[in-house]
Order: sequence, then C-alpha cells, then structure tokens
Amino acid sequence: MTEHRFLRALKREPVDTTPVWIMRQAGRYLPEYRATRERAGSFLALAKTPELACEVTLQPLARFDLDAAILFSDILTIPDAMGLGLHFIDGEGPKFHHPLRSREAIMKLGVPDMETDLRYVTDAVRLIRRELAGRVPLIGFSGSPWTLACYMIEGGGSSSFSSAKALMWEDPATLHHLLEVNAGAVIAYLSAQAAAGAQALMVFDTWGGMLGPDPFIEFSQRYLGMIAQALKADPLTREIPLILFSKGANGHLEGLADSGCDALGVDWTIRLAEARARVGSRVALQGNLDPATLAANPQAIRAAVKATLDDFGKGNGHVFNLGHGITPDIDPAHVAVLVDAVHEFGRR
Amino acid sequence: MTEHRFLRALKREPVDTTPVWIMRQAGRYLPEYRATRERAGSFLALAKTPELACEVTLQPLARFDLDAAILFSDILTIPDAMGLGLHFIDGEGPKFHHPLRSREAIMKLGVPDMETDLRYVTDAVRLIRRELAGRVPLIGFSGSPWTLACYMIEGGGSSSFSSAKALMWEDPATLHHLLEVNAGAVIAYLSAQAAAGAQALMVFDTWGGMLGPDPFIEFSQRYLGMIAQALKADPLTREIPLILFSKGANGHLEGLADSGCDALGVDWTIRLAEARARVGSRVALQGNLDPATLAANPQAIRAAVKATLDDFGKGNGHVFNLGHGITPDIDPAHVAVLVDAVHEFGRR
Repeated sequence: MTEHRFLRALKREPVDTTPVWIMRQAGRYLPEYRATRERAGSFLALAKTPELACEVTLQPLARFDLDAAILFSDILTIPDAMGLGLHFIDGEGPKFHHPLRSREAIMKLGVPDMETDLRYVTDAVRLIRRELAGRVPLIGFSGSPWTLACYMIEGGGSSSFSSAKALMWEDPATLHHLLEVNAGAVIAYLSAQAAAGAQALMVFDTWGGMLGPDPFIEFSQRYLGMIAQALKADPLTREIPLILFSKGANGHLEGLADSGCDALGVDWTIRLAEARARVGSRVALQGNLDPATLAANPQAIRAAVKATLDDFGKGNGHVFNLGHGITPDIDPAHVAVLVDAVHEFGRR
Repeated sequence: MTEHRFLRALKREPVDTTPVWIMRQAGRYLPEYRATRERAGSFLALAKTPELACEVTLQPLARFDLDAAILFSDILTIPDAMGLGLHFIDGEGPKFHHPLRSREAIMKLGVPDMETDLRYVTDAVRLIRRELAGRVPLIGFSGSPWTLACYMIEGGGSSSFSSAKALMWEDPATLHHLLEVNAGAVIAYLSAQAAAGAQALMVFDTWGGMLGPDPFIEFSQRYLGMIAQALKADPLTREIPLILFSKGANGHLEGLADSGCDALGVDWTIRLAEARARVGSRVALQGNLDPATLAANPQAIRAAVKATLDDFGKGNGHVFNLGHGITPDIDPAHVAVLVDAVHEFGRR
C-alpha cells in the first residue's frame, strides 16, 4: 500500500492534494457523538470504554472525507493513571480529587504502568486500527508535560494557572521533577500507543502559550524536546511522524522545530507563510484556519480555506487543520464544505 | 509643578525611577472595593455613580505607592449609551439586552451624546481629579472599536466571538460601518474625558489578539490608528499621552507603533527587550509582568520585577505594569511588594 497523503505530508513528501483533519473532529458538534456520549453515561465512561471510544473516533469519518482519524480520549489520562482521580463536573470541565498540593505529593509520583493502568487506551487504539482497516491513518496523542502539570497542580482548569506558576517561581526544582516524571510518562504512553498501532503521534501543549518567553523554554519546550529525542532514538517510534502543538506560542516556532519532531501545529494568529519562513525545511506545518470561520456561510468558508492554502503556498509539508479545536456550535454541513474545499483547492 | 514621572515616562523623558500602576488596580482583590461594590448594590450602579466610582478609583492609592490612578468604569459604557442595554449576570459577565442581530440594527446606530448619555463618566473624571489634588495623574480609557463590536454583536462575552467573526467573513462592509461608528464614539468619549481632566488616555483592545494577522490589520489596527490620528490632530488631546493595548497581538507591535500613539501596552508573552527592539524609539512601552507572578511569594515577586526591569534595560520610556489585569485571588500585600520593588530596582 502506498503511504497515505497525511503521512506523506508530515514527512514533507509530495502529495496529490493537501490532507486535512480537524482537531476535536469527534466531538459535541456531531449529533451522533452526543447520542453515544449520552449512552455512555459520562464523558469519562466514553473515553474509558474502548468500544465506545472507537465508535466516536470513527463517526466523523463516516460523514466527511477526512485524511486521518484521531484516537478519542482525554488529555488527562496520564495523571488519572497516576492516581489523581480525574472526574468531570458539568460546565466546569476536568477536576482532580487529589491535586498536587505539596512537594511530598509530587515526589511520590511515578510513571503509570501502560499495560494495566492505561490498557483501555491501547485497547482502543488496537480496536480503531482494526475497524479503520487501512482507510486512513490513526493519530495517537498525549498532553504535554507542562500542560499536564498545570492541571495536576491546579486541580482543574483555570484562566491563569497561578498555582502552577507560583510553584515555578517559588520552587522550580520541584516543578522540574514533576515535569521530568510527566515527560517519562508521555514517552511511555506514546510508545505504547505506537506499539498498539498509532501511525502518527501528537503532543498537545495547550497551555504553553500562557508562559513568558524564558519560562516557556525552561518549563515546556525543554520537555517537548526530551519527548522528541526519546521517540526518535527508539526503533519502535523512530519512523512515526511526531507533531508538536504549543498553542499561542508562535514566538517559539524555531525552537520547537529544532526539537527533532516532524511537524508543528500552528494556530491562526500567524501567517503560514511566516511560520514556514521561520522553520524552513526542518518540519511540516499543520494548521491553521481560525475555528470561528466554520460559523460563517459556505462561501466564506471556501474563501478562507483557499486563502490558507495560498498562504502556505507551493511545496510539500502542509497538513490542513484548524488553529484550535472545533466548537460545539458548528453545523456539521460546514465541516463538509471545509474538507471538500481543502481537497479541491489543494490539488496539485 | 514638574510633570509626574508617569507622564514623563510615557513621553520617553528621563525619570528618577520607573513609574508603576496596575491594570484593574481598583478591583475585587481589595476588601474595601468589595465593600463599596456591596454598598452600590451592583457593578453597574458602582460604575454609574460618580461618587462611588471616585471612591474605588482612589482606594488602591491609599494602600500602594502607585504612580497613576485609572478611572473606574466599564469598557462597555459606549454601547450601553447607544441603547444596547448593558447589564451583568453574576458569574457570566456583561450582557446586552439588545445585541446587534441584523444589518438594520447596525445601520441605525449613532455616536452617543457625551454631555447627556455619558455624563456620569465625565462627572466621575472631574470628581476624581479634584480628590486626587495633583497627587498622581489620572488615566481615562475606552474599549477599542473591535472589542466593543465583539460584545455588541455577540451580546456578551464569548470564548470565540464567532458571531462577530462570521459577520467579518460574510459581510465585511457592515462590520466596517459598525467599527467606524464605534471609532467615532471612542474619539468623542476620550476627548470628553480629556476635557474633564484625564491626563493620559488608554484604549483596551482586549480581543484584538483573537484575530488572524490580516483581519487584525483590517478590523482592529485600522480603527486604533483612526483614533490616534484624530486625537493627535485635536489641540485638546494632542499633548495627552495615548496608550494602545492590543492583548495577544505581539505580532503587530510595529504596526501599532506607527499609529501615532505615544505608548504600547505589552503582555508577558514577549520579552520587553524584543518589543523595544521592534518599536525602536517611536513609542514608550507599558508592561509586562505575568499577573500570575503576584500569586508567588514576595521573594519571587521581587526577583520577577527585577528581571522585567532588566529586560527593558537602560534608557527612557518604560511604565511598569502587569501584562494583563490583576486577578481577584491576589493578596494585596503582594501588590505592595511589587510596587515598592519597581521603585527600588528602577531607581536611576
């Protein structure tokens, strides 16, 4: 089988047309997702039941001509497996029963056992691969060490993550210990997903952009680099494209491109042409349409897709995506318009 | 009277030490603010009663050695005066009874009468100036045309402002009409505040950073430039320093510096040294400590203040501030540590 255009684009090889997938493509904007979520009883039951996770992973592929599937899961499965007690409160997002409130709590943490504690994830990966039957590649993913640490220290979401940042300023050594444990866990987790069949791997550094320039390099980028180095040193994962996405950290594209990863996610606040000029031929780029574009009419969506493709320009190494996840208010018909427009305007 | 160091710094003139004020310094982190807010009955009653607005404006100055007062008000006073019906729902932020749902609604809008519809604001400015008695300068302010439009179209806050963006993509001419009306209103509003005694003026473009590069220039920066040009062409406001702050729009510092304003607010995701290199000698800079720093201990706060001052380096044109507003969780004692550290480490 010739390699799929999604994997070829990540390796900066020629493609027939630009591949496209959408962050959070298996999500609340789809009525069939909401139905399965209802049936599961809770978001966490949905994520932890391989058959249901597989079902929602495949839902958007039945509707749209997408070029990749992405494992349906949560970014906080690792701290949950470490014993922090992940749960969800309606309208408030993720919470931990046992957030990290002391140095002692942090020093006690260890890398979870992938075979037992996170088996439901690798089971889902195997099941999805079987159901996909080679139609499109499957992306595995993880939260970044810094982003996991934000939630683990804060105990949930936050607009400022000031507890995590206070630890950074008051006791950086302890935070570095936590980030090192997290990085070890992310490496083991992504390797386990690869062993189970994931064909591309992505790290979501959702909160990297909340850090100032020096803290970003010291507390986020450094550990993203550690992950890239480890995965590229291991024969199991060496050939599997690795995508890093630090949202809101456009000032750091050069540093991230030097990490050893294959591609960078890019949000919509920078021109792809500028991002490309800055990373050169080191990595492919994935992005970067403003997700709010999907609330506009089909004509406007098509024009915006074309502008994004034109902005990247000719040459290899572009995976089309939004600059952030799709929101629940979007009409699924608009997603079809986007996907088809990418394939139409992206044709070589 | 020699001009105060805050005004001198905005004009890039030599100062004895770096001046400092804090965005949202009259706010919920202060128990005395919460008491006055309680007495007022509602946030809007507080903002619309000049005596109470004056009272909370002065509260932080009684505690801290701040170099400027900023008018206590809301950024949505202009659309309220246009008849949109501003109100606040606890925990949900600002809402409008009559959001702009059609082109017709937008075409009917006009610039409010400053003498009648916004008299409570200029009355507050006059009262605060009298009570300040020359101790420190008073800053007047407004929301930016784009930021006002976001709330006016959406009807309240939003994580994506997708209705405002949908109008941008589907009917840019109508959005431009709205932004032009808003810009006219902002110019009249800031001029009225200057006539009442405001000694510096600031425009908060809170949501500019949500726009992609081209939309930012077309729908936000353009109207910020219109405001700067108008204020600098008018003898009443020509000499009054104008500060523009587009949060999250660090990619546009050069363009904003060319607008004709005197200073730019800068958030904490860019080094002041880099910002300074990019704007050159065109404008002063105001910022840019991460607001979450204030949750750390005094020792860490002092170190972070020193690092920020060192980052700006020698030379004129720095007003110290946070990179965004202070949050309600902060201990007021930490604010005192920050203010005193700025004056100590900033001494020439």
